[in-house]
Amino acid sequence: MPLTPEQQAQIDEDRSTPRPTLRAVSEGMERHLYVAHPVLDHGLVRVIDYMGDDGAIVQAARVSYGRGTKAVSNDEGLIRYLMRHWHSTPFEMCEVKFHVKLPVFVARQWIRHRTANVNEYSARYSILDREFYIPAPEQLAAQSKVNNQGRGEVLSGDEAQRVLDLLREDATRAYDHYEDMLSQDGQQGLARELARMNLPANVYTQWYWKTDLHNLFHFLRLRADAHAQYEIRVYAEAMCRIVKDWVPLAYGAFEDYRLGGVSLSGRGVEVLRRRLAGEVVTAENSGMSKGEWREFEGVWG
Amino acid sequence: MPLTPEQQAQIDEDRSTPRPTLRAVSEGMERHLYVAHPVLDHGLVRVIDYMGDDGAIVQAARVSYGRGTKAVSNDEGLIRYLMRHWHSTPFEMCEVKFHVKLPVFVARQWIRHRTANVNEYSARYSILDREFYIPAPEQLAAQSKVNNQGRGEVLSGDEAQRVLDLLREDATRAYDHYEDMLSQDGQQGLARELARMNLPANVYTQWYWKTDLHNLFHFLRLRADAHAQYEIRVYAEAMCRIVKDWVPLAYGAFEDYRLGGVSLSGRGVEVLRRRLAGEVVTAENSGMSKGEWREFEGVWG
Amino acid sequence: MPLTPEQQAQIDEDRSTPRPTLRAVSEGMERHLYVAHPVLDHGLVRVIDYMGDDGAIVQAARVSYGRGTKAVSNDEGLIRYLMRHWHSTPFEMCEVKFHVKLPVFVARQWIRHRTANVNEYSARYSILDREFYIPAPEQLAAQSKVNNQGRGEVLSGDEAQRVLDLLREDATRAYDHYEDMLSQDGQQGLARELARMNLPANVYTQWYWKTDLHNLFHFLRLRADAHAQYEIRVYAEAMCRIVKDWVPLAYGAFEDYRLGGVSLSGRGVEVLRRRLAGEVVTAENSGMSKGEWREFEGVWG
Amino acid sequence: MPLTPEQQAQIDEDRSTPRPTLRAVSEGMERHLYVAHPVLDHGLVRVIDYMGDDGAIVQAARVSYGRGTKAVSNDEGLIRYLMRHWHSTPFEMCEVKFHVKLPVFVARQWIRHRTANVNEYSARYSILDREFYIPAPEQLAAQSKVNNQGRGEVLSGDEAQRVLDLLREDATRAYDHYEDMLSQDGQQGLARELARMNLPANVYTQWYWKTDLHNLFHFLRLRADAHAQYEIRVYAEAMCRIVKDWVPLAYGAFEDYRLGGVSLSGRGVEVLRRRLAGEVVTAENSGMSKGEWREFEGVWG
Repeated sequence: MPLTPEQQAQIDEDRSTPRPTLRAVSEGMERHLYVAHPVLDHGLVRVIDYMGDDGAIVQAARVSYGRGTKAVSNDEGLIRYLMRHWHSTPFEMCEVKFHVKLPVFVARQWIRHRTANVNEYSARYSILDREFYIPAPEQLAAQSKVNNQGRGEVLSGDEAQRVLDLLREDATRAYDHYEDMLSQDGQQGLARELARMNLPANVYTQWYWKTDLHNLFHFLRLRADAHAQYEIRVYAEAMCRIVKDWVPLAYGAFEDYRLGGVSLSGRGVEVLRRRLAGEVVTAENSGMSKGEWREFEGVWG
Repeated sequence: MPLTPEQQAQIDEDRSTPRPTLRAVSEGMERHLYVAHPVLDHGLVRVIDYMGDDGAIVQAARVSYGRGTKAVSNDEGLIRYLMRHWHSTPFEMCEVKFHVKLPVFVARQWIRHRTANVNEYSARYSILDREFYIPAPEQLAAQSKVNNQGRGEVLSGDEAQRVLDLLREDATRAYDHYEDMLSQDGQQGLARELARMNLPANVYTQWYWKTDLHNLFHFLRLRADAHAQYEIRVYAEAMCRIVKDWVPLAYGAFEDYRLGGVSLSGRGVEVLRRRLAGEVVTAENSGMSKGEWREFEGVWG
Repeated sequence: MPLTPEQQAQIDEDRSTPRPTLRAVSEGMERHLYVAHPVLDHGLVRVIDYMGDDGAIVQAARVSYGRGTKAVSNDEGLIRYLMRHWHSTPFEMCEVKFHVKLPVFVARQWIRHRTANVNEYSARYSILDREFYIPAPEQLAAQSKVNNQGRGEVLSGDEAQRVLDLLREDATRAYDHYEDMLSQDGQQGLARELARMNLPANVYTQWYWKTDLHNLFHFLRLRADAHAQYEIRVYAEAMCRIVKDWVPLAYGAFEDYRLGGVSLSGRGVEVLRRRLAGEVVTAENSGMSKGEWREFEGVWG
Repeated sequence: MPLTPEQQAQIDEDRSTPRPTLRAVSEGMERHLYVAHPVLDHGLVRVIDYMGDDGAIVQAARVSYGRGTKAVSNDEGLIRYLMRHWHSTPFEMCEVKFHVKLPVFVARQWIRHRTANVNEYSARYSILDREFYIPAPEQLAAQSKVNNQGRGEVLSGDEAQRVLDLLREDATRAYDHYEDMLSQDGQQGLARELARMNLPANVYTQWYWKTDLHNLFHFLRLRADAHAQYEIRVYAEAMCRIVKDWVPLAYGAFEDYRLGGVSLSGRGVEVLRRRLAGEVVTAENSGMSKGEWREFEGVWG
């Protein structure tokens, strides 16, 4: 998203005045503060504030487990241990606040993560800007034929053009009419809280979104996943890059145990054990349903 | 909202087969189960399930406070005591699940209440119906001149007609194009998760929404309030009528202490005390800001 | 725990009067309602109320996923699909309320599960009963030599006897003094909220605890696990048996995917793939730490 | 609580190294960082980290309400407006993490506030210190005669001495036996997770407790209240002093609207209106119960 000169000037000013603090500081995160990371055609993610670093996770664990944690010789080992054993509370000791600009239909998925604090731009009080998400041509995908919630091949030719034209024209017209209804020029002007209902789900909104690291990891695991809708996944991926600089040890453990990890059912464990013992297991004698087997094969061949 | 004959038949069937249970039963709530209460032009609220009754609140309080609660001679007195003293946990012992059909812009306000369980119809998986909220003429209000988030006078004449025409035409066109983009007739058909972005915020969605009585009261206090937007207030009011039949004692206390109650600041208490002592207090010597004084006068004259 | 005749009479009365309801009914759960399941020496778990059944999970999923769920031919397949893909909201549509009597040190672990509603017996208002948890001899274990938070061999002989004597005598004396301080016989009597501080952590308390099925499964996964402390695990196991009767399909999926499942890290996946390809992988060339390798070997040999 | 020289040295070290940050800084809070505020005989509260300041609340509100907030001319007025109208989300944008050392019976009340992150010292992993809360003589109160959960007159003479002796002796003996059971000198030594059950509720524990400002205000409103138990109220009061230095504008609004405010029921409003109109209202014609009237008179005379 192209920032206005005023916005860029504000960011530059926010970044120009370091002040002394006695708090834990993450050098990697300081570099990101206030900087706008562009996402989609008009969206952005930027860090507004944060609390804690890798050391804060270790510190909390050592409070909890006292002398017991002395046995783990280093911070990375302890953090990996905590992640492996699903200890969530030490990761909750870190907090981050993002400013996000995103299409409404993405915001509607995002808000389903309830353990977070949110202040969203209010279209009851204020007038939304004329900005809409229009997919890039390579993201204009057909409905998947095998997955009810997925995408198939990319549309091409006339069909692609028709879709882009419809999306652009309808958004433009909807916004024109939004302004017409609001206008107090020669008329009373419709209430903002009503006029907004004419705007489509690809209009951009923005919010401050604040959460702790444990809940952020949960969000990232679901939304940076290959099955997440592309338009929210790109936000999650931008946030992954930021988190990696903020808490590199915790992010490394998250990457290994969650993003790159696999959950096996009891049946899956059984099948793998049989395979390791040299048996050739088939869909028929696996004890799994067709869907489970297809997913299992996707990972293990 | 006009139910289809199939929907009504399903409701009739759900209501036709009482089964024995050993659980607490609220006679008042049983009469509401599954019945569709119409809200707005195509919306509805209906109860799908519930847990507990007034007795469950009393029972939980008596577990907590043990012999101490014996002193309160009756259930109504105890429930009023709990409400007056902000005891929230006994009210959390009751739970209710609603099926709600509502416009997307209302759903976006509603979902900000985070302590609830939600399953919403997914426009990634499925195709939304062609149903849009169009305000009744008497709800077509101008922007308030004194309140940034409020409504002023009702629009009339040409302006009203223009607004209604725009809302109807834009919604119809947006939905036509939604169908065009989805169509697999002679083309691949755009993915559902993308096509939905063309639909405006007055399209109807639906969800199952489940919460406990304490959090429901919090929702109702904010959303049945005169300052809430009309389009969510009518849902809250329909739910108030249902809750009154479900837990009449708790609802009575809620009505007196919350809906009909007033919060005074320390300054407000001070001003009232001076007035009761016979002093004439003015905006100038009240110690309040203009805004506070205007609101204070609104209640106390 | 031996119920008093009054308590048993109350349970019998609660179970004697079925009433008609239009709500979903779980036959399996009706058999458990109000019945006291003994746990430890004086503890119990019993179901006081519930909402929903396996059908409620399916119903919520079908609302969310609309026509998309038609493809899954049966309820069990759909529920297993939801569990496998970490869909949590349909499971949140079921709710259960337990009455639990448990030692304070167990209650302190239990309460860390925050997404639940609780009404605990208040020792500010009321006087606690003279009941303490004293471990059975076969549970009187030594500190583990390898695990800071685990148990080792069972104590025997004199040492076991000394421990049991100390626990019994100290609890008895503490309670005697609690009563002495509270007594208003010839003295004022200490406030209850102060006197309680003399009671040890094995004194029994009780509460109503209400949660949804998704959060209950999370609780059971952690607390029915072999690494959980025995004294909370026996409560979790009693609840597992109840949940199995309440929602047999959901419990079956939980058992396979969670209780019997295994989480692999990216490194773990890699090692298994190498093994399946015939390679002999050792601790040294596994890329794992000693701790990880030991745990990995524990599952895969 | 007297800090050990090692603890004081650690605090001095933590405070000796300011580092540059681009984040919002609260000068008032920097002065408190890491410093131990003594509470009760061995307890403490200290700030370990924080996020945001008064400006962060205003900033979040301006994101939400956009141009609408321009009308409020200054930060204090806006913060008071937000507090008066129960806008909670802007206050959630500030976060704070405390290290607290407190008796177990206080921890048990405290933990009922669920919207917080906690890492408590684990007595499964580690051995608790020999520290117990023994009330100061002026806090050794009798059971209230009018309030089931309150305190009456202070005990004196022999009774006071007996109580103090019992509390001290029982705590000492319980801890001696805790050590005896744990000892591996000539015996196996009982598991820590079991031995801890012998310790009374006045033993000290400690935790890291992290929450947002909205939820902290809720905690403080209930726990700094005159009806809260003294032993938790002193912690709340210490935190009030810290918060006042951290976010002076928000704390000022909280003090006026919440701590110093009064909630009136609909009946209460009615009675005050009648009084303001010159009528003499009595308990009998007030429409209130005896309890309500007594509380009402307590405020309004």
